[in-house]
Amino acid sequence: MIDAMGGDHSPAEIVKGAVQAAQNSDINIILVGREDAVSGELANYSYDTERIEILNASQVITPDEAPVAALRQKKDSSIAVGLAALKEGRAGAFVSAGSTGALLAGATLTIGRITGISRPALATLLPNDKGFSFLLDAGANVDAKPQYLLQFAQMGSVYMENIMGIANPRVALVNIGTEKEKGNALTKEAYELLETSNLNFIGNIEARDIPFGAADVIICDAFVGNIILKYTEGFAEMIFGMLMKEDVPKSTLYNLKKGFDYTEVGGAPFLGLNALVVKAHGASNAKAIAAAIAQCAAFIEKDIVEKIAASLRPSQ
Amino acid sequence: MIDAMGGDHSPAEIVKGAVQAAQNSDINIILVGREDAVSGELANYSYDTERIEILNASQVITPDEAPVAALRQKKDSSIAVGLAALKEGRAGAFVSAGSTGALLAGATLTIGRITGISRPALATLLPNDKGFSFLLDAGANVDAKPQYLLQFAQMGSVYMENIMGIANPRVALVNIGTEKEKGNALTKEAYELLETSNLNFIGNIEARDIPFGAADVIICDAFVGNIILKYTEGFAEMIFGMLMKEDVPKSTLYNLKKGFDYTEVGGAPFLGLNALVVKAHGASNAKAIAAAIAQCAAFIEKDIVEKIAASLRPSQ
Repeated sequence: MIDAMGGDHSPAEIVKGAVQAAQNSDINIILVGREDAVSGELANYSYDTERIEILNASQVITPDEAPVAALRQKKDSSIAVGLAALKEGRAGAFVSAGSTGALLAGATLTIGRITGISRPALATLLPNDKGFSFLLDAGANVDAKPQYLLQFAQMGSVYMENIMGIANPRVALVNIGTEKEKGNALTKEAYELLETSNLNFIGNIEARDIPFGAADVIICDAFVGNIILKYTEGFAEMIFGMLMKEDVPKSTLYNLKKGFDYTEVGGAPFLGLNALVVKAHGASNAKAIAAAIAQCAAFIEKDIVEKIAASLRPSQ
Repeated sequence: MIDAMGGDHSPAEIVKGAVQAAQNSDINIILVGREDAVSGELANYSYDTERIEILNASQVITPDEAPVAALRQKKDSSIAVGLAALKEGRAGAFVSAGSTGALLAGATLTIGRITGISRPALATLLPNDKGFSFLLDAGANVDAKPQYLLQFAQMGSVYMENIMGIANPRVALVNIGTEKEKGNALTKEAYELLETSNLNFIGNIEARDIPFGAADVIICDAFVGNIILKYTEGFAEMIFGMLMKEDVPKSTLYNLKKGFDYTEVGGAPFLGLNALVVKAHGASNAKAIAAAIAQCAAFIEKDIVEKIAASLRPSQ
């Protein structure tokens, strides 16, 4: 299920991406949004009408609206309607490129947390020179507690093992030094919890080692995670800007850009809920939406929700 | 005054940098460290013996030692001896590429804070696509309070105005969104303080805008500052590594590398103390040490300590 009204290029690119995903897989898709706008876009494509349907939602929540107030006022928004339909089991996942705040708040309220999870976390694949690390929390809990960070590590390990096929993923805590006693109050306590867990905790990671793939699962609070994620975007963009002014072959720019292309990665899963909710980048084009949909299929097939629930049981 | 025994390339590169600084300016230099080792290095150069002297210190604190314990045990370390001599007024500044923790702890204890300053902050020039922003706190206070952040902004503004010649420097708070109500408990309270200050506060800055020079003075706690600083180092190094494998002209690599070359910048001043203490990069070569020494001269000439003290008075 896809929020057809979210993101900078909605509904055109969202609908196009959904059609591509349907063509490239056997996934059935529900597009949530204004029926007239969505059907108008769908009319541009030939597709199997049995496999793409529209769920009407007359309102749209914009990213500049206060999330909780917007959810309360716009009961017929694409985010509210989509999440309610997900809760009812009409689909296995909901993808939106719309308001992050409204999506996270709405998802937590509507879908509910997996038993034992204190706080769901937004997770994202972060590019490094060998592939990707999985960074969480990238945007949900700015004032985190040590126990949340332990759970982020558990959820991240399940994801990397089952979706990315990395056996015994290396978990590291973002910190200002590698020694155990380094850091702030949060990281010192989180270190203790991670050290005594059954995860493959390799200790603290300094920010300078993140781009070299020193860990598979990278744990931090959402403030730090957001800084790392956004700084990566900005820094990569600045470097490309500098290189464009230099005498650099087009093929080099292409290779470099591909390594930092969020449209290849899909969206950011919101982990810890009883169903899959994915935040796609606000600037998502059709390719990014199609990638996010493909990612949902793997998540559902591997039953990540149940595997996360199972990972919490031994320690309870 | 320079710690001849600190950093990966001490004492050779430190002594070489001090000789270069003496040759390029009229600064007189005291090298603190083991007399035999330092004089052995000095013997490699011809220099004005009236202008470079040695202050003997028989011990060295290494970066892996616990800072406070090391300072207590090694009373004759180059850091302890250098800071004591700075306190006595034997020099106008002390530069060290040695243990950050020992330097900051020792400086705070020995030199003392400017009246009204709650916490000194480590500050660093961060490269962007137009020049440099001044980032603080980059390493001193991991669990900061809102009032500290206001003072960091005041100190950073004095520095950028007087040392970098930027009139009315734009101050921004690192945050996860530009809206006032965004962020964690610390940033929300700090925003209120900055907004009602007499600084040129332009609001929150998202990490993606930092590389584009969106502010002159960038304020955050030391945990976030360390992440930004170290991530910049690691990310730039990774990009260079990728470009080295591609067909990129040497001149392009050179231009790009120059933009992120810490040896051009000098060291990181530790602001808020009654004298200037500068942390040079642990990997400092002679060029970096010479740049750090040159920076000290400007700091002393402009009387930044007194200007910081003056900037605090109206609000008291």
